Amino acid sequence: SMAFNINEHQHIRYNPLKDEWVVVSPHRALRPWSGQVETSPTEQVPQFDPTNPLCPGVKRASGKVTPMYESTYVFTNDFPALLEEGPEPEDSGDPLFQMKAAKGTCRVICYHPHSNVYFSNLSLKEVVAVVNEWINQFVELGQKYTWVQIFENRGPMMGCSNPHPHCQIWASSFLPNEARIKDKNLKEYFKKHKTPMLIDYVEKELKKKERVVYQNEEWAVVVPFWAVWPFETMVLPKRQVRRFNDLDCKQREKLAVTLQVIVAKYDNIFKCNFPYSMGWHGAPTGESLRENQDHWTFHGMYYPPLLRSATVKKFMVGYELLAQAQRDLSAEKAAAVIREQPEKRFA
Amino acid sequence: SMAFNINEHQHIRYNPLKDEWVVVSPHRALRPWSGQVETSPTEQVPQFDPTNPLCPGVKRASGKVTPMYESTYVFTNDFPALLEEGPEPEDSGDPLFQMKAAKGTCRVICYHPHSNVYFSNLSLKEVVAVVNEWINQFVELGQKYTWVQIFENRGPMMGCSNPHPHCQIWASSFLPNEARIKDKNLKEYFKKHKTPMLIDYVEKELKKKERVVYQNEEWAVVVPFWAVWPFETMVLPKRQVRRFNDLDCKQREKLAVTLQVIVAKYDNIFKCNFPYSMGWHGAPTGESLRENQDHWTFHGMYYPPLLRSATVKKFMVGYELLAQAQRDLSAEKAAAVIREQPEKRFA
Ligand SMILES: O=P(O)(O)O[C@H]1O[C@H](CO)[C@@H](O)[C@H](O)[C@H]1O
Ligand SMILES: O=P(O)(O)O[C@H]1O[C@H](CO)[C@@H](O)[C@H](O)[C@H]1O
Repeated sequence: SMAFNINEHQHIRYNPLKDEWVVVSPHRALRPWSGQVETSPTEQVPQFDPTNPLCPGVKRASGKVTPMYESTYVFTNDFPALLEEGPEPEDSGDPLFQMKAAKGTCRVICYHPHSNVYFSNLSLKEVVAVVNEWINQFVELGQKYTWVQIFENRGPMMGCSNPHPHCQIWASSFLPNEARIKDKNLKEYFKKHKTPMLIDYVEKELKKKERVVYQNEEWAVVVPFWAVWPFETMVLPKRQVRRFNDLDCKQREKLAVTLQVIVAKYDNIFKCNFPYSMGWHGAPTGESLRENQDHWTFHGMYYPPLLRSATVKKFMVGYELLAQAQRDLSAEKAAAVIREQPEKRFA
Repeated sequence: SMAFNINEHQHIRYNPLKDEWVVVSPHRALRPWSGQVETSPTEQVPQFDPTNPLCPGVKRASGKVTPMYESTYVFTNDFPALLEEGPEPEDSGDPLFQMKAAKGTCRVICYHPHSNVYFSNLSLKEVVAVVNEWINQFVELGQKYTWVQIFENRGPMMGCSNPHPHCQIWASSFLPNEARIKDKNLKEYFKKHKTPMLIDYVEKELKKKERVVYQNEEWAVVVPFWAVWPFETMVLPKRQVRRFNDLDCKQREKLAVTLQVIVAKYDNIFKCNFPYSMGWHGAPTGESLRENQDHWTFHGMYYPPLLRSATVKKFMVGYELLAQAQRDLSAEKAAAVIREQPEKRFA
């Protein structure tokens, strides 16, 4: 009988962070595609657009004018999903109809005053400024809120409605699902193995090499063994840190370099502005700042939807929504594709 | 201080089936949308297309010719994500790199020989034939496989690449994530309350009425209290049944009526072919056929992406992927919209 080949034969893989499985069907990569094609994400934007509320000096929906900022700029979202105050629901007492209060705040971080820049063409100093702003915001909001979710939706395909380089922060009084699940699984692993799961994981990946797409002294970028999205990656520190603000100067600078490289590599795959959602996870904040959180390792995630080209994405639909995530390309194959891309973006 | 209003004030709600929470931000419904708009799903298709492999008499990618079928027609997917046989991975022995064998089969069910028909314009008899075919397939595949996932992706927005009315079945040797999680939560509820969760749930919803969008003698369609997608619904039996094949003749016929009504209502909301993924869940099969499964209640789910119009969908992106699902419109508001739609599709 034939030998099992990870790049050719179907199997399921386990995600120990989420306690979930993914179906891997590499044989299906040959499937022709006659379904929906997207607009190629290659949009060019001017440096300044007088109608774009994220540009310096332009009036926003709230009536406030965005100031003439020169580095990063942070403001409260004009249409926040979470408000700081509001009436609270009562407990229904019924396990099938449970509601709880949710408090929070939503902010927007502009990375730079110019609309036509991004990680791959900002200077290293400018990217370090973005990293430092993320950390400032995380520390400030973490005093009050249990979870500070920093994330970016890049491109219209990812529901982003403004081409100016920016990300968002949604901070909340509750621990969101993804954080709660990771907390549980990281805690169980730590209890059993006495080491943080993600530090064990990054060390093993660095030895195995097959899923590593980039590394420097402080960081490794891998396609996780359990990746769901075709070109999903994880950004992992080589030294244990629990939260964003635990990073020292060298780690911050090297993170900036890492971001520049990974975005350039993504853009090079299909010669476009590779769409994705990305964000950062670390130990919870608020009241958790006073608890032991040694099981948590700070890390980043990129979830990009493209599968075959700049216009054909992976649809996470019927089977994926109702049963289990499924991928066509093995994580190892995806890693090889990302790894071989130049570290500078195509011009 | 202001009184809490479920249609106006933010909160989080609990999904007892999945042990997950959703953020509800009704105040955000006013947010203007300047992001990506989709193609309006109003495509007209001819009754017969000689190039469409799902039409009777047309040759498929595999070289096989689709026969001159007159009712439903089932065949094995030419590009299946799951194969019946194949080499199996070895156990790595490492908790961070777990792989397992996956076996399965993928089938396509054409609902009818004509391409220009759907639930809302098929005769009741023809829809009953679809329901019976689902059950036949479920029984046949359930002899061998642990989970038989019947699902439909409707429309190009949902990754469907063929306009002929059809659905899919992916049957697997493993219990997929969604099924495993529901099984766990249903089991715990049954242990504690001695009644199936979803029967308690449907009874309570029928009393409360605010989330019921349609009902007949056998079935109720509700926007679940914990709905994530803007117009998500759940199809629940009024009498306890564990699996698709436990439905008696009356339940089958009334299910066909229910499907016709719910699809017509959906299409009427934005006067289009409302896109969605839908599918059926019930007690597991295979070796589980011999186990007690009284905690399971057979039910259906519709997950439609549209939010504000035929061209503006809800993007499940950054915050949703990294933290927690979020919705703008309360489940009660969505239910009111669906409920007030006529039961016949616009012409
Ligand atoms: O099987 P199809 O229709 O070719 O493909 C569609 O449904 C599948 C099952 O949900 C998904 O994995 C694919 O991404 C989607 O495009
Ligand atoms: O906040 P934005 O950019 O207006 O909106 C985008 O990101 C949000 C957070 O992931 C999502 O809830 C929205 O569906 C998406 O369109």
